[in-house]
Order: sequence, then C-alpha cells, then structure tokens
Amino acid sequence: MRVLRAEQFGLTREVEYGTPEQNEAVRQIVESVRTEGDAALLAYTEKFDGIRLQASELRVTAEEIEQAYDKVEAPFLEAIREAAANIRAFHEKQLRQSWVDVQPDGTMLGQILRPLKRVGVYVPGGKAAYPSSVLMNVIPAQVAGVPEIVMVTPPATGGKAGIDPYILVAAAEAGVKELYRVGGAQAVAALAYGTDTIAPVDKICGPGNIYVALAKRAVFGAVDIDSIAGPSEIVVLADDTADAAYVAADLLSQAEHDEMASAILVTTSAQLGEAVAAEVERQLATLPKADIARQSIEANGAILLADTMDEALAAVNRMAPEHLEVMVAEPMGLLGRIENAGAIFLGPYSSEPVGDYFAGPNHILPTNGTARFSSPVNVDDFLKKSSLVYYSKDALLKNGEKIMTLARHEGLEAHARAIGIRLEREGEQ
Amino acid sequence: MRVLRAEQFGLTREVEYGTPEQNEAVRQIVESVRTEGDAALLAYTEKFDGIRLQASELRVTAEEIEQAYDKVEAPFLEAIREAAANIRAFHEKQLRQSWVDVQPDGTMLGQILRPLKRVGVYVPGGKAAYPSSVLMNVIPAQVAGVPEIVMVTPPATGGKAGIDPYILVAAAEAGVKELYRVGGAQAVAALAYGTDTIAPVDKICGPGNIYVALAKRAVFGAVDIDSIAGPSEIVVLADDTADAAYVAADLLSQAEHDEMASAILVTTSAQLGEAVAAEVERQLATLPKADIARQSIEANGAILLADTMDEALAAVNRMAPEHLEVMVAEPMGLLGRIENAGAIFLGPYSSEPVGDYFAGPNHILPTNGTARFSSPVNVDDFLKKSSLVYYSKDALLKNGEKIMTLARHEGLEAHARAIGIRLEREGEQ
Repeated sequence: MRVLRAEQFGLTREVEYGTPEQNEAVRQIVESVRTEGDAALLAYTEKFDGIRLQASELRVTAEEIEQAYDKVEAPFLEAIREAAANIRAFHEKQLRQSWVDVQPDGTMLGQILRPLKRVGVYVPGGKAAYPSSVLMNVIPAQVAGVPEIVMVTPPATGGKAGIDPYILVAAAEAGVKELYRVGGAQAVAALAYGTDTIAPVDKICGPGNIYVALAKRAVFGAVDIDSIAGPSEIVVLADDTADAAYVAADLLSQAEHDEMASAILVTTSAQLGEAVAAEVERQLATLPKADIARQSIEANGAILLADTMDEALAAVNRMAPEHLEVMVAEPMGLLGRIENAGAIFLGPYSSEPVGDYFAGPNHILPTNGTARFSSPVNVDDFLKKSSLVYYSKDALLKNGEKIMTLARHEGLEAHARAIGIRLEREGEQ
Repeated sequence: MRVLRAEQFGLTREVEYGTPEQNEAVRQIVESVRTEGDAALLAYTEKFDGIRLQASELRVTAEEIEQAYDKVEAPFLEAIREAAANIRAFHEKQLRQSWVDVQPDGTMLGQILRPLKRVGVYVPGGKAAYPSSVLMNVIPAQVAGVPEIVMVTPPATGGKAGIDPYILVAAAEAGVKELYRVGGAQAVAALAYGTDTIAPVDKICGPGNIYVALAKRAVFGAVDIDSIAGPSEIVVLADDTADAAYVAADLLSQAEHDEMASAILVTTSAQLGEAVAAEVERQLATLPKADIARQSIEANGAILLADTMDEALAAVNRMAPEHLEVMVAEPMGLLGRIENAGAIFLGPYSSEPVGDYFAGPNHILPTNGTARFSSPVNVDDFLKKSSLVYYSKDALLKNGEKIMTLARHEGLEAHARAIGIRLEREGEQ
C-alpha cells in the first residue's frame, strides 16, 4: 500500500452521471413506460432480460415466496431473522412524534408527521443481489408506518429465470407483500408513473446499475428518490494500540467490494502503518476476491501518516468517509471531534461487517464525501411533515397589524387585506 | 372562477428544467467560477449586474449593515423582530438530540446529530427580495447550530446599485454576519466550489430565478441544495359555515404572487362556491395587483364542488397543496384525514399570511404536489446524522458466527474473515 502524509491527502472522485447515450436510452425507456404502461414494461423485459411475460405474471405469487423458504438453509434464516429484529429495534428508536404547541391565547402551532403512502424498493438481480440490502431499505419504511411497500427485481438472476430465493425470503421477513418481477429503468418508470399492473409510488429507493440510477434521476420530482450511491469507502483511524491484523482485515473487507472501493488507514503510528501494509499482503494471499481487492488497494487505498491526532482527525473530516473505524486507546474520547462520517465504528470489536449485517444501524450510508451533508438511510426518509397553524381570534387581533406591515412592505396588498378584512369584522364584535 | 366537479380535478403542472441554452449558459458560468474563482465572479458581476467590483469589495461591511438600520421604519423593525422571535421559537421545538442505546453487554448503538458546518443562503435581488424569506431560510440553520451562515445577494436592487436595506436588516436580525454582493449562477458556483474570497459551503438554499435554480441543480452532489420551488399554491377546504369574504381574500392573497400561482376552493356547499366567486370579483376590483391575480385565477383557479366531505378530502389529498386552509365547522376533526399538505391552516383566523410572515412555522413549503413526499424547510435540513456502533467483545463472540453466515452468503469472504480473525483471537482468551 502506498504511504502518504495525511495533511496532503484528499479524496477527489467524480460522480458518474452516465454517457449521453445511456441518458438518451433511459429517457426513451421512461417515456415509453409512462405512455404505454404494461405493454412497454413487458417489451423491455423481453428485450433486456430475455423473458417473455404476461402482465398477469408480473406479480410474484405467495406460493413462490413460500417455496423460497424451502430453498434457504436454516442458519441463514436464523441469522437474517435476528438481523431483521436488530435493524427494526434500532430504527424504532428513530421514530418521532407529531407535536403541537398549545399557547395560552388558544393558538396552536405544530408539526404533523405522517408516513409516505407507498414506497418502491428496487432490488438488483444477479451478483449484486444482497438480502441484507433488502432489510436495510424496507425496514426503515416499515417502521415509519408506510402502508404500502412494493418491491421490484429483475425476473432473472445471473442469466437464469427466477428470483433469488434468499432475496424473496429477506423480503418476506422484512414484511413485503407486493413484489414484481421487473427490473432496469423500465421498473423505475413503472414505479414512478404507474401502469395497469403496478400502482405508482411516492418514493423509490434501493441500489441498481447505471441505468437504474439514471432512471431514478430522471423521475425525481414526480416522485422522491434516495441518494445515488457511489463506490464504497472505509477509513480506519488508528494509533499504536491497534491490532494490525484487525485493521488489515477491515480494510480488505471494503476493498473486496469492487475496484473503485477505497480503503484508507489514517494513523499516528508509522510502525502500525508498516505492520498493516504487511498484514494486507499476508491476508490478500488467501482471499477469494484477491484480484479485486488488490486493484482497489493499489488504486484507491492508502496509509496516511499524521504527526498528531489533530492532523489525523483533520484528514478524516476532510474525507468525510462512508464508514469510519476508530481503533485507538480510548475511542469514545474522539467521538466529539469526528465531524463527518456516515457510520462510526468504535473500538476493536466494531468491525465494519458488524454494521453491514447485524447490529441494527443502516448500512446504506452517504458515499463520496457527502457525509458532510447527508445521513444514513433512516426513518425520517419515509416520513413527511406538515406544519399546523391554528391561530386564535385573540392572536389575530393582537398581531394582525404587524402581519399587515410586513406584507405591505413586500408589496403584497392582497396578503395584507386577507388579514385586514378579518380585523375589521372581528374587531367590531 | 370556473366551477368543476371535485372528483375530476387533478393538478398537472410541469416542472421547469430550463432550455438547453439556459443549461449550457449555466454550465459555462459554473465551470468558469470553479476554475478561475474570483476573476470569473467579478467578470460575470460586471456583465450581468453592470457593476464593476474589486474582490475586496465583495463582502458587505458592518458599516453598510448599520446604515441600513437608519433606512427602515420602526414598525417594520418591530414586526420583523417579533416575527424572527416567533420563527426561532417554533424551529427550536424541532430540535432533536443525539441518542445512544446502551445495552447490558456493553454494546452501544446510537445516532449522532451534528449541524452542517457552513451553509449558503441565496437572496434574490429586485422585486423578489423578501425579508421574510431571509428569516425563513436563515433561522432554521441557525437553530440547528450551523456555525457559519453566509448570504449572497446581487449587488444591485431593481437596476440600482446597492442592496435593499430591508434585506440587510432582516439578515442582521436573523444573525448573518457574512454577506457578499454577488448573485446569479456565479454566486451559486462560488458557494459550491469556493473562491479566494468566498469559502465553499456544504449546502445552498434560497430562491432565485431560472439561472439560480439551474446552477443549484448543477452543483448538487458537490454540495447539498434545498428543493427547487415551483409556483405557489393554496387550496381552501370549506363547508357552508365558512365566510365567503375570508375565503376569497385568502385565495387572492395567493393569486397575487404571479400568474402561475394557483388558488382553489374545494367545498361541499354550492352556495358558498357562488358566494366566493362573487366575492373574488368584488375584491379584485380594488386590488393593486388585480391583473396578475385575475390571470392566475382564470388560468389556475377553480371552485371544486364535492358531494361529500370524503370526496372533498380525496381531491385535497390528490392535489397535495403547498398551503391548505380548512374553514369548516369543526376543522380540528379533519386533521387526521389530511394526508398531503405542506402547511395546514385551521379555522377562520388562520389566514395564510399569518403563516407567511409571523406565526413561526416555515413559509418555504413543498410545491407542485411534492407534499406527497416532501416537508417544509425545517431544522433537520441543516443537521446530518452519523450512526454509532460500539460493539462489545461479548456481543461479537455471541453474534460473530451469524454475521459470518450472512457475509458468506453474499460472497463477501473478506467480510466474514474480518469477523473470523477476531473470533479466533478473542475467543481463546
């Protein structure tokens, strides 16, 4: 791994917005599905997935989901059930209440929280189909109280007709009752605009390939979308008390995702840096995805040396990593100084996969430095707020003139008169 | 006003994405400012605002702000101070705390909330410069704890050099200390990428013309942006107990904004509908902005008749209005059935201008039907969350195998090994 000075280092990676050809292809698909509905949906499914379906076959049946349970191993089922329970418990703690502020003159001001009505979750097919991501997308919506959660996923997995049974089981465990076998930009368009078979949703979330990402961008405004994820990142912040083997294993767990993933150690200990570099090589030797991980480490990995913890923290905050592990003598003592990170893993036992799969917090996190201003997927993403104003007659009589002053200053006479007409009539009584 | 059946009516308005020429112009401006910094900023200011400045003159001085106070009337100052206090009090109720869930085995899971570090607020020049909007954009950021709030506004107001003193006073009252006289797409680019004079921000908010909107869209990803507002809307839901003059005045207060604004009455009372139509005509006769208001009413206004309150509510929820006024015999009784609305005004005294200026809730609300999935500007918009995972050794030993099962199922062996290496070493001890 390359070794650099921490103070020089910044992540500068570009967001992928697709080629003009990809954008045009997506525009056409979205437009066709919007105007032609199911017919376009089925035509694209035949074209891209090689599977000819009737509209009546789009929906996954209850029997298929039942049969999926026969195909998954008991330890998987046990583990995913416990993971789902942990994820649910964590996200339930995020739930907030509507509130109202009752004032002595009878005025009430408040904020009403309500779940979105219908949410669509995209689940990729093939090798990127992760049951854990199904839980992480669906459960927060469910905890928010979204009454209709609908899942779409391509009709074939890795070139073979049929949906991965593990995905079906994860969906069922998360509580999804409405699933369609349709993928790509056409599925996103169907969720946004609706067809005879698939009713439109208010928000679309979940990962996908570049066509799915571009389609989400294209329908944004008609519906809400989640953020479009970049490559995965980990930064490990460590001092000389850290175990080099643990650090190396955690860096590699990120690097195996894909060549674009980035795994970075920031340390005040040159000795630890050397030991981690050696451990990375040692562990790479027997790793199944060593090729991918090595490419990631060489292209985007780094060991950043800092003279002081202040300098190390500055580098971390500048990178605003998706995942940050803190392996120092007293990790909790640094928490207040970490400004930007999607998820923070403290101490030697909080290896990132603990959070990826099991502990409870969401594993869908802001990438590409956006932790400066974005947050992990959470229950708020599936709630909308309405302000509540119940103004009393006393409050209006007391404050009406001031409201009129402000409205008139802005040249909005009809605003002033809407107050004025009430002051005239109610003031008399 | 046209009278329609409520069950047929839907709002179908397009979002403005700009012409290809406008998009290209904005792309060039953003790119120039990104690469050339202050030099480009000053050149565009001369070109578009007709004002030649040095970089050292961009920042508004404390003396200018002091002098602005001499130019505003005492009643305005008094009203805006009270409005600012109300807005602050309301938004303080939105504030949440970071939390941590401490488990018996020593594991701690939590959600850490932190303010964004630096936020830029765009304030338009000319006739669209509203002091009330300055308060509504700045105060939630300030309540969130954003340490650096910076404002940009064009160097000329309505063709005259200088910034509107009312805007400067509103900014000062809201607590802004850093202001620059620069507007347009060039100001947005400077906020996003920074120049020698203006440090880059994490989020840009505030309204502007089409060039400002397109520039915000162009820099999204490098920074966060607020939503891009469409034309303003009001829906009044009323039964036969409503006062037709109040309803008409409130509809007109929306219609005077611009020709694209929409003002709609939904009522179960045909008699009220007739009375409101007559009142609208009567009140239009003496309104300064009667031309604009009439065009808005004719193009986008409507009186929707519903046989039942259920039908009326369905129409309201389908429209998902920015502002909803409920003037019925028992308005609080309907609150639970209003699914989609940016702000809900209940009862005869809660005229929309009460919320536009004074009561406390934010007046920046989701437009164009997006109240289905979006919310008023609020404190959460200026906070970011980080997940916290502090996993204990006991928890890792207990759950490690399950985590490894899930990771291996997803083909992520390095994830499994990051757990495995810890189980091996820690399990022995």
